[in-house]
Amino acid sequence: MTLKYWGKRDKDLNLPTNSSISVTLSQKDLRTLTTASCSESFEKDSLWLNGESHSLDTPRTQQCLKDLRQYRKELETADSSLPKLSEMKLHIVSENNFPTAAGLASSAAGFAALISAIARLYELPQSASDLSKIARKGSGSACRSLFGGYVAWEMGELADGHDSKAVEVAPRSHWPDMKACILVVSDDKKDVPSTSGMQLTVKTSSLFQHRVDKVVPERFEQMKKSIRDTDFQTFAELTMKDSNSFHATCLDSYPPIFYLNDVSKRIIKLINLLNESAGEIIAAYTYDAGPNAVIYYEEKNEAKVLGLLHAVFGSVDGWSKADSTSFIAPSFEVEASWGAGVSRVILTEVGEGPQDSQEVLINTDTGLPK
Amino acid sequence: MTLKYWGKRDKDLNLPTNSSISVTLSQKDLRTLTTASCSESFEKDSLWLNGESHSLDTPRTQQCLKDLRQYRKELETADSSLPKLSEMKLHIVSENNFPTAAGLASSAAGFAALISAIARLYELPQSASDLSKIARKGSGSACRSLFGGYVAWEMGELADGHDSKAVEVAPRSHWPDMKACILVVSDDKKDVPSTSGMQLTVKTSSLFQHRVDKVVPERFEQMKKSIRDTDFQTFAELTMKDSNSFHATCLDSYPPIFYLNDVSKRIIKLINLLNESAGEIIAAYTYDAGPNAVIYYEEKNEAKVLGLLHAVFGSVDGWSKADSTSFIAPSFEVEASWGAGVSRVILTEVGEGPQDSQEVLINTDTGLPK
Repeated sequence: MTLKYWGKRDKDLNLPTNSSISVTLSQKDLRTLTTASCSESFEKDSLWLNGESHSLDTPRTQQCLKDLRQYRKELETADSSLPKLSEMKLHIVSENNFPTAAGLASSAAGFAALISAIARLYELPQSASDLSKIARKGSGSACRSLFGGYVAWEMGELADGHDSKAVEVAPRSHWPDMKACILVVSDDKKDVPSTSGMQLTVKTSSLFQHRVDKVVPERFEQMKKSIRDTDFQTFAELTMKDSNSFHATCLDSYPPIFYLNDVSKRIIKLINLLNESAGEIIAAYTYDAGPNAVIYYEEKNEAKVLGLLHAVFGSVDGWSKADSTSFIAPSFEVEASWGAGVSRVILTEVGEGPQDSQEVLINTDTGLPK
Repeated sequence: MTLKYWGKRDKDLNLPTNSSISVTLSQKDLRTLTTASCSESFEKDSLWLNGESHSLDTPRTQQCLKDLRQYRKELETADSSLPKLSEMKLHIVSENNFPTAAGLASSAAGFAALISAIARLYELPQSASDLSKIARKGSGSACRSLFGGYVAWEMGELADGHDSKAVEVAPRSHWPDMKACILVVSDDKKDVPSTSGMQLTVKTSSLFQHRVDKVVPERFEQMKKSIRDTDFQTFAELTMKDSNSFHATCLDSYPPIFYLNDVSKRIIKLINLLNESAGEIIAAYTYDAGPNAVIYYEEKNEAKVLGLLHAVFGSVDGWSKADSTSFIAPSFEVEASWGAGVSRVILTEVGEGPQDSQEVLINTDTGLPK
């Protein structure tokens, strides 16, 4: 997320206290593959995630399935020749190509993939924005993942949430040279889960309401404009400031919530050093509800940005796809100790939204995972 | 500081953007001893601090000396029999009984001691509040150190700063059983100095103005009341919340300022665990512009609070004055690793303001440090 979602005005409907913006990352690097199937022979809605059976019996998930079935029902009512998929149970199999434990918003991506897979199975005519409202009820941040490129989640005003949905700010093709390097930071402590964390912030932070009322609305418009203008300087500054602001309201909670650790802070200082030495902003850090950094930069500055990150974090996994011969070494001295605490890098870039795949994860004979 | 000073509305006069509150700590434990002398034979104003010669030629210090001489001059004009001390140069010798490098607000205490020593040398009739205005021009926080016990710095409204001064909220005797344990946290990085740090926050944090306009004024009244009521629960909660809020605005600065490190955060979590297990707030953490923790508690809870802190940090220096036989072990498990990163504890309590001492640090024959 480049403009942070933090705080719900309605917990049941997952309605946020502020609008937010994210960049959808490429599925070449971080991908959730999901197959949805239904059959009269299935006895209950079932989900297998990375080979393990998971319950679909949570109220949130059931609400999503009910909404999707309702849309399907409308089609079936209008055209009685259609198979009655809305009356069958679903079997869903989902696999990530990245570790779920790394705290890389896997639940958002997973939920978006689930909604999208069922919508395609049902051949629903609804737009991505319409489907985003369903995804939102399942997992707030998931709503943005229905789109590729640059996506806004408009908070909306209505009590029933009908205007709280994702919209495209710009497609990937508008600004395709946005790159991202994810620095996976090892963390021994369990963070406060984001759902309870945001509730604590809403309830106890004396700075939070000001962020929501004054700070974010202005940034939301500025960031959308910076994307439309492909103005990296502004986009990057807003991204870093909003990451700071979000973590500041976490720290202002009582008791305080800390997602950034000393490794995260060292990365922030490193990016500041890089930008200072470049004489302009060529990289931006941002942190969601955890210590992992996402560093955004434009392709034209890749040699400098990855040159620095490789000089510091070059010993961990994840560099094989980069062309290290092009790297430009930093103009300032880096200390060997700065590399500690990062376990892996993921090199990626702005990507598309949910895509059709030829790969099928379900055995069509048994209805079970392959 | 229990309610934080962070931000100047006038840099030259050291006028703050908000009122603040502190507890003056006992000079048995943290003491600056200062001798001021003047003589016609002295050639220039000179200061020796912990045995080393320091310049008094900064504009701030010169302004303080000028103000003090002006008050002395008024006495000499009114009574011509008085020696003309205002026309002589000053020699000042100052010694701390604690390491200045530990980041324990030594400059504030040192400045207050300097002002106080010269005022006594000059036999000035001015009140501590009047002197606090002079100290404020030298080093903002120093103004509160002219008082013992519980002290407020009223921000004032006037452009010339005449109403920006320290006042007593309550003397030490009103609430004498307030104890403090300072946990000195080792830190390899150099922090942003507080003067430039607060300027950066004022200039760049989008949450700061809200803190100053809305959050602090309310807390200021509540905290004064909690002191008058000797209401530890309220005092402690406000102290922790304001520490969080201050560090939140530091983090919201651009680039962000971090004074808390992972050790500081672990101590915060430890105090939260202690309060939770006690079923009430029996200890409060607070952090100034650095990673050192000050833990406040009431004497009646000493066995529990020090029992926990000793269980975690018992291997470092500073415990000799505590009666460890009375310690109550924590009711929850503490991990051995939690003790890392704290280099020393200082056990202290609420104390008196500047006191006269029989000890003289200057050789009266030579006018130089003994």
